Amino acid sequence: MAAVDGLIRRHMDSPVPVIPALAEHLISGSAKRLRPLLTVAAARLAGARDDACLKLAAAVEFIHTATLLHDDVVDSSQLRRGRVAAHLIWGAPSSVLVGDFLFARAFELMVGANSMPALEILARASRVIAEGEVLQLTRSHDLDLTEALYIDIIRAKTAELFAAAAEAGAVSAGAPPERRRALRKYGQDLGLAFQLVDDALDYSGESDELGKNPGDDFREGKATLPLLLAIARTGPAEREFWLRTVDRREQADGDFERVRELMRQTGALQDTLDRAQAYAESAKAALAEFPAIGWRPALEDLADFAVARKA
Amino acid sequence: MAAVDGLIRRHMDSPVPVIPALAEHLISGSAKRLRPLLTVAAARLAGARDDACLKLAAAVEFIHTATLLHDDVVDSSQLRRGRVAAHLIWGAPSSVLVGDFLFARAFELMVGANSMPALEILARASRVIAEGEVLQLTRSHDLDLTEALYIDIIRAKTAELFAAAAEAGAVSAGAPPERRRALRKYGQDLGLAFQLVDDALDYSGESDELGKNPGDDFREGKATLPLLLAIARTGPAEREFWLRTVDRREQADGDFERVRELMRQTGALQDTLDRAQAYAESAKAALAEFPAIGWRPALEDLADFAVARKA
Repeated sequence: MAAVDGLIRRHMDSPVPVIPALAEHLISGSAKRLRPLLTVAAARLAGARDDACLKLAAAVEFIHTATLLHDDVVDSSQLRRGRVAAHLIWGAPSSVLVGDFLFARAFELMVGANSMPALEILARASRVIAEGEVLQLTRSHDLDLTEALYIDIIRAKTAELFAAAAEAGAVSAGAPPERRRALRKYGQDLGLAFQLVDDALDYSGESDELGKNPGDDFREGKATLPLLLAIARTGPAEREFWLRTVDRREQADGDFERVRELMRQTGALQDTLDRAQAYAESAKAALAEFPAIGWRPALEDLADFAVARKA
Repeated sequence: MAAVDGLIRRHMDSPVPVIPALAEHLISGSAKRLRPLLTVAAARLAGARDDACLKLAAAVEFIHTATLLHDDVVDSSQLRRGRVAAHLIWGAPSSVLVGDFLFARAFELMVGANSMPALEILARASRVIAEGEVLQLTRSHDLDLTEALYIDIIRAKTAELFAAAAEAGAVSAGAPPERRRALRKYGQDLGLAFQLVDDALDYSGESDELGKNPGDDFREGKATLPLLLAIARTGPAEREFWLRTVDRREQADGDFERVRELMRQTGALQDTLDRAQAYAESAKAALAEFPAIGWRPALEDLADFAVARKA
């Protein structure tokens, strides 16, 4: 991963002054580098003998960083990775354009890795992520969003990059189709678990651990699973409360605490975490055909970490 | 070009409702499809016998459309291609995300064309364009921007895609290095001529012909060549006028008309057009080694059109 970090640092450079400063701000935040780790781990598990996966891993982190920059503009977020969101320092226009820069750099890195199948996987993933983001944007205040459609949204906007990161690593190592599918499945289920825990933490976490403010999703009226479950389970009695706070986003002091209490009473938070745990188990099961040594236990631990984490 | 349009229409589709509507709005505007035409013409001139260039041409138009969507958000533009700018209808967040969708689609199309060298050219161009946009954003109100730096900016933000469009077409046809370089040079000089004429039209054009409002660049305080020449040539006498209208952007009725008058007096507009003409001549000269039949005269006419056009 140190080699991946070296590639990331070299390729975020540019003679245009704002670009490296803004990229550095985000890339040096409290990032977990989960997605590039997936690429490298999948490649090694699939028997990679060269370092093409390192360039793909750096490309995956650049795609992720570009989407974070654009997301924060779209959501007007205040904090990201424990730092003030870039658009609040350099302005939304710079965030949009530096996101474009990083996205293009990702494709330059992929060309360097010289694998057309990996390029296809990551180009498709980039498109699916954008579709998921638009879908979330247009449906985000919908109180009656079904759980199935919500899972479709996070499968596109989050899990697709985890799936593609793992699959691209496998493909770059010349893995046969069934191993490629197994690693893609691992990545996708890990991504779903990861996003569901993110959604839960936005209601249960503490800001000093999170690196962002809890309650952001609620303040933005973003329909995530814990909220959808709480809305469905509180019935007509709370309908007016949800219409006011989520649909019309007219929020007052104490509303967020009331939502947390309703989530506890209805088990909405615990059920979200239970679903995340189930996806993590499914992710681990996808690795069954690999030998139970080396990278396989590491990826199993990663799935457990995705659920157990506090930030 | 009808085949390219067919590809464009098929690939801008998505099950997410906002995406095709927003993409259609922009792509069906009064677009000239100059850049994809360059790709097809360069490929044919270089002797292409298959249709790989059509996918590359559609990809080029998608990259261009994505940058237009993001540009209009960055500049808060009102009109584009004769229509209300997309971000004013669907909101800036949708424009940012649909831009990302089109950019990713471009790379999916390139993968379909199956030419790693063409992918490298267009990935690099996408990155250079983003760098040019950031450079323009950070220097756009600089009254003392030199002509050389201004040419560097438009070479990156505009001419690079023209250059890459032509070069990618040449490469996909298996052109030898000297023909590839010649077509790249043609594209780059055509792009510079095209942008300089755009800059001049923003002061001399009529809105019903332009498909956007003349004076946009001035209102945004954007330092383009006609403005830079007028500022340099009017000297200390007008310094306070420029500081107020361009640097501080405090503009009043009659200011735009005064600028047009100063541009006439100083010859700033005519000199901008003369420089455009010189680049168009240089573009045509780059084609010298191709036989003077078929696509070569067509590309020569295109260079003349780039300068003579009124919109």
